[in-house]
Amino acid sequence: MIIELQQNIKPDTLHQLKALLTINQVAFSHVEKQNIIVAPKISNKSVLSGIDGIEKVIEIDTPYQLSSNQYKKETHFLVNGTSVGNNFINLIAGPCSVESEEQIYSTAEFLSKNGIKFMRGGAYKPRTSPYAFRGLGLDGLKILRKAADEYKLNVVTELMDLSLLDQINEYSDIIQIGSRNMSNFYLLAELGKIEKPIMLKRGMSARLSEWLLAADYILSGGNDKVILCERGIRSFDPEVRNTMDVAAIPMIQDLSHLPIIADPSHGTGMAKFVHPLSLASLVAGANGLMIEIHPDPKKSLSDAQQAMTFADFEILVQEIRKLEPAINKPIDATYEEA
Amino acid sequence: MIIELQQNIKPDTLHQLKALLTINQVAFSHVEKQNIIVAPKISNKSVLSGIDGIEKVIEIDTPYQLSSNQYKKETHFLVNGTSVGNNFINLIAGPCSVESEEQIYSTAEFLSKNGIKFMRGGAYKPRTSPYAFRGLGLDGLKILRKAADEYKLNVVTELMDLSLLDQINEYSDIIQIGSRNMSNFYLLAELGKIEKPIMLKRGMSARLSEWLLAADYILSGGNDKVILCERGIRSFDPEVRNTMDVAAIPMIQDLSHLPIIADPSHGTGMAKFVHPLSLASLVAGANGLMIEIHPDPKKSLSDAQQAMTFADFEILVQEIRKLEPAINKPIDATYEEA
Amino acid sequence: MIIELQQNIKPDTLHQLKALLTINQVAFSHVEKQNIIVAPKISNKSVLSGIDGIEKVIEIDTPYQLSSNQYKKETHFLVNGTSVGNNFINLIAGPCSVESEEQIYSTAEFLSKNGIKFMRGGAYKPRTSPYAFRGLGLDGLKILRKAADEYKLNVVTELMDLSLLDQINEYSDIIQIGSRNMSNFYLLAELGKIEKPIMLKRGMSARLSEWLLAADYILSGGNDKVILCERGIRSFDPEVRNTMDVAAIPMIQDLSHLPIIADPSHGTGMAKFVHPLSLASLVAGANGLMIEIHPDPKKSLSDAQQAMTFADFEILVQEIRKLEPAINKPIDATYEEA
Amino acid sequence: MIIELQQNIKPDTLHQLKALLTINQVAFSHVEKQNIIVAPKISNKSVLSGIDGIEKVIEIDTPYQLSSNQYKKETHFLVNGTSVGNNFINLIAGPCSVESEEQIYSTAEFLSKNGIKFMRGGAYKPRTSPYAFRGLGLDGLKILRKAADEYKLNVVTELMDLSLLDQINEYSDIIQIGSRNMSNFYLLAELGKIEKPIMLKRGMSARLSEWLLAADYILSGGNDKVILCERGIRSFDPEVRNTMDVAAIPMIQDLSHLPIIADPSHGTGMAKFVHPLSLASLVAGANGLMIEIHPDPKKSLSDAQQAMTFADFEILVQEIRKLEPAINKPIDATYEEA
Repeated sequence: MIIELQQNIKPDTLHQLKALLTINQVAFSHVEKQNIIVAPKISNKSVLSGIDGIEKVIEIDTPYQLSSNQYKKETHFLVNGTSVGNNFINLIAGPCSVESEEQIYSTAEFLSKNGIKFMRGGAYKPRTSPYAFRGLGLDGLKILRKAADEYKLNVVTELMDLSLLDQINEYSDIIQIGSRNMSNFYLLAELGKIEKPIMLKRGMSARLSEWLLAADYILSGGNDKVILCERGIRSFDPEVRNTMDVAAIPMIQDLSHLPIIADPSHGTGMAKFVHPLSLASLVAGANGLMIEIHPDPKKSLSDAQQAMTFADFEILVQEIRKLEPAINKPIDATYEEA
Repeated sequence: MIIELQQNIKPDTLHQLKALLTINQVAFSHVEKQNIIVAPKISNKSVLSGIDGIEKVIEIDTPYQLSSNQYKKETHFLVNGTSVGNNFINLIAGPCSVESEEQIYSTAEFLSKNGIKFMRGGAYKPRTSPYAFRGLGLDGLKILRKAADEYKLNVVTELMDLSLLDQINEYSDIIQIGSRNMSNFYLLAELGKIEKPIMLKRGMSARLSEWLLAADYILSGGNDKVILCERGIRSFDPEVRNTMDVAAIPMIQDLSHLPIIADPSHGTGMAKFVHPLSLASLVAGANGLMIEIHPDPKKSLSDAQQAMTFADFEILVQEIRKLEPAINKPIDATYEEA
Repeated sequence: MIIELQQNIKPDTLHQLKALLTINQVAFSHVEKQNIIVAPKISNKSVLSGIDGIEKVIEIDTPYQLSSNQYKKETHFLVNGTSVGNNFINLIAGPCSVESEEQIYSTAEFLSKNGIKFMRGGAYKPRTSPYAFRGLGLDGLKILRKAADEYKLNVVTELMDLSLLDQINEYSDIIQIGSRNMSNFYLLAELGKIEKPIMLKRGMSARLSEWLLAADYILSGGNDKVILCERGIRSFDPEVRNTMDVAAIPMIQDLSHLPIIADPSHGTGMAKFVHPLSLASLVAGANGLMIEIHPDPKKSLSDAQQAMTFADFEILVQEIRKLEPAINKPIDATYEEA
Repeated sequence: MIIELQQNIKPDTLHQLKALLTINQVAFSHVEKQNIIVAPKISNKSVLSGIDGIEKVIEIDTPYQLSSNQYKKETHFLVNGTSVGNNFINLIAGPCSVESEEQIYSTAEFLSKNGIKFMRGGAYKPRTSPYAFRGLGLDGLKILRKAADEYKLNVVTELMDLSLLDQINEYSDIIQIGSRNMSNFYLLAELGKIEKPIMLKRGMSARLSEWLLAADYILSGGNDKVILCERGIRSFDPEVRNTMDVAAIPMIQDLSHLPIIADPSHGTGMAKFVHPLSLASLVAGANGLMIEIHPDPKKSLSDAQQAMTFADFEILVQEIRKLEPAINKPIDATYEEA
């Protein structure tokens, strides 16, 4: 249940309400920024009778509350002027890791030329092995920011640990949370306290409800700019890196108001399948795509086999434009040019 | 390795070749209809030196051989004049089970009106519980056939057991093998001996190579009309019936020459997600779709929650037509009208 | 719901009862051999009021009925004098495939010397590839039978297809149904009509309730001698052949009265882990084990890496005897000697 | 490859060695505490020829290095006098969450009376929902410590976030890393810098090699006291909470020198199956068990259905003692009494 409070609710009344919930042994969360109280386990509104200051009560029958579409019908917001999660296709592209200034500048120039608005790139990399390349760190962030500013792009980059929050927050426009951190509840709670949009990737074996509960961790902190990102799940077939759960896209849209994008680069793990799965995700309803591209994929220091060449990415963008009439959503760029 | 024999190979030479393989302890399969010998474990061509009557040797480095695209680039064939597996979208629709003459006739009329060429319907149903409705049997087959003939449709129906092969072969145009039978090797071997096209569904937790090996069981018997059908795999999320592996479509096309269609009805298990997953499968490259529709889904005796209404199916067909320019493949019907 | 009929129920009354169920649109199964009617969907006993000839009504709230322990507390039976499924450890051992008379005779002699009562061996083999060794067929069955008779052993061998039922029934003492056939409902239904005990392996990705429903297919035909066999499930780790679900053993015993044995050879896929998983399965409550052994594992024509040597198997049997005081169940042999 | 350096290696030589590796573009890790360099990708020893100061080179052909049993045969260490990972059964028991002083004191008294040496209890709880009880925090830690000190027990408690490291380190004797944090590489790296033993749970869908690489993150920081804990993996069966991978125990012991214990409480998710899976894990070779017990399970604030009663735990301990002769390992307590 979500209890919307009146704007001018008196401190005393609020205190009384909270006391009442506590007495009834109901766990709840007060989201000050949105002036609401979330109390999932109240099954009976009558507990609240006699309390002033309540604007509206929204009953929600799922464990996740703030991410549920029983609460809200749609979420969209602007990132430096570009609309995210609305009736546009948000395209995010760039290398797995920041490797050099040259690599990032050539990527930024390429993206800009193609009307792309969001550049991805990892400065700190989660690596299964402690002996693998872990990214350029702060130097990488600085390169990303400079190139993005020069070419008027937004930076999407991953936050791996709370200790890096200030740094990542300073240099990025959208903060990416990787699948390994989807259940890092301390990190999620802290992200609720900032303003920056968060792209929350699905955990490797996360159920849809667990994913939406993870989103609730951020939303219940007060940050309402959450984008979900489907990136493939772990299945029984060792012949594939991940199994892209395309159906999760319309299913999430049936359950939630949050925008959802697809990452077919991780979802398939092989560059040659990124094109068909990109198109599939979009016609299935995705609000956007995040795609790994590299000026010279074979020289990529990480995930080399899943990065597209610039040339292949351009073909993909052309194919996406061909789909626009069918799916009724333009790519960001198209919109900006209009 | 696939050894293509000369058309006029002498019986003696053939005998000599087989003896040689046996002596070298190489398992092999002689496919008389195609005049080839399949011997996957020969690693060294030199074994064959000095043997006459060999037209060509094709080295294939996967465990599956005849389904590999190292053997052939593309497979298509006609089913009563309609091209399957070519640059067309083959649409197959109909109810989960044949329930009554009325139901099948109204379905056939509807399909015909919409230019659909293939009607599905189960006369014998695989049911997890021995106490559930198991279909009308032979009566169901007769209804399907009569209605299909009247409306010039092709019948696609499931064969569950070898004991029913003659019956199903007589009444159907394409024989469907369900996911539970993908590893029923005796059944597959028998299907190699008939002429009718076989639609082979992927097993619930079958790897791609296992699926193609199952196809090889049919192909190595001499029947070269095999259509694969992705119908969702079993995953860890109890909130979904199956996980539709859309990426399997381009991956299979990368490995094999066989046509592959998608069954988003079983793949998602919920009617409302059939539309987006149908479109997704097609833009990912599927050669067609098999979709459950019912004149009155709520009254369906099996799989009620996954059957589309006729009205929703018409909308889907319209949306598919909108995609035709992007994917460069017309629906069967469109082609027939031209 | 299971309706136990009176022994002397009149044909007319029985007819009346069936008509009543049909009118109420309740699917049911009449198991003549046990003089019961199984009707899972009757939720209200009152439907039956006024019907004579009913001895007892047992309400069962699971989809599976006859395999439920709400119906029966325990199942055990004799196989040529050896008790199966009682408070004994039934040990079954032998090669994956029958390869030669010499191999089977040396196995039989070894088993007999160690007091083992059940010999396994595959005459017809399910192989993922159509190009692999598929067993000696009828010749293999004859070898098994002869060796078993000479050494007073019982034969456990797999039935792969209905067409082989008579053959396998004639030569075996327990018929094994492999995991690929767990959902072959036609085959299961036929097994309900014979007397021979059936060992039903769990499907590669079968849920416990699906497995018990498969057992119900056999039981509802009238054959009440069903043994379940856990043989590992498919999971996400390509580094293991299967994941042995040891917990399924006590879970099944909590749900069902059927005996359950473990097959750690397939369950782990590697000979060196068969020993610990055998012990683990027994202390978890398994009624027995089926283990692959081979006089010379390296020369085994199938599953070479999972067969134990005779020497290692002897050590395992000694270790099992050490556990007897803790688990309170003797191995068959011990009992026979007493 | 692990390069053991000579104790008196000169700074210059060390510098030269590192430079050489860098020039050869080999990622490496210098573990100062153990005076070794780990360089997994050197395939050719000859790179090192001409370098002084090398004691020994150990070639390791797995991606994980320091956790491999190619490096070391066995790991054991003392925790306040009790041997962990040696030929003893380490038993850890206690509630899921610290709820009250009374609860913890009654648990501590009970454990002490039964000769148990390790008490578990969660002060900070990872909860899938942001609206669930998250533990008593620091107050909980203080209660645990006080009770443990009074009854001479060791405290095992979970660290959820780096921000709590100092706190948890101060109040615990073994730090538990939960399955959701198995891939939290920043956290793991920091744990390498402390002295306290770390119990690293397997991720919900982690492959064995990924788990050992996670251990390598800790080990390569210099902390060599790592205990692995199998706690069940996610599978396709919604009827079970997790699938306990008992085979992982001997498999890990075949790959690694690290001690491995089992957590059948999470592994099965149901109290009634904890007993059989505890015994199964031990005969499969586990070095110990971690089990949830609660003075009054029904009143437990978290994971109520998986906590054993004290009475049931006592029965389990008795049954474990019966196994001691078979498995040749005494419980901690037995040893202490000797």
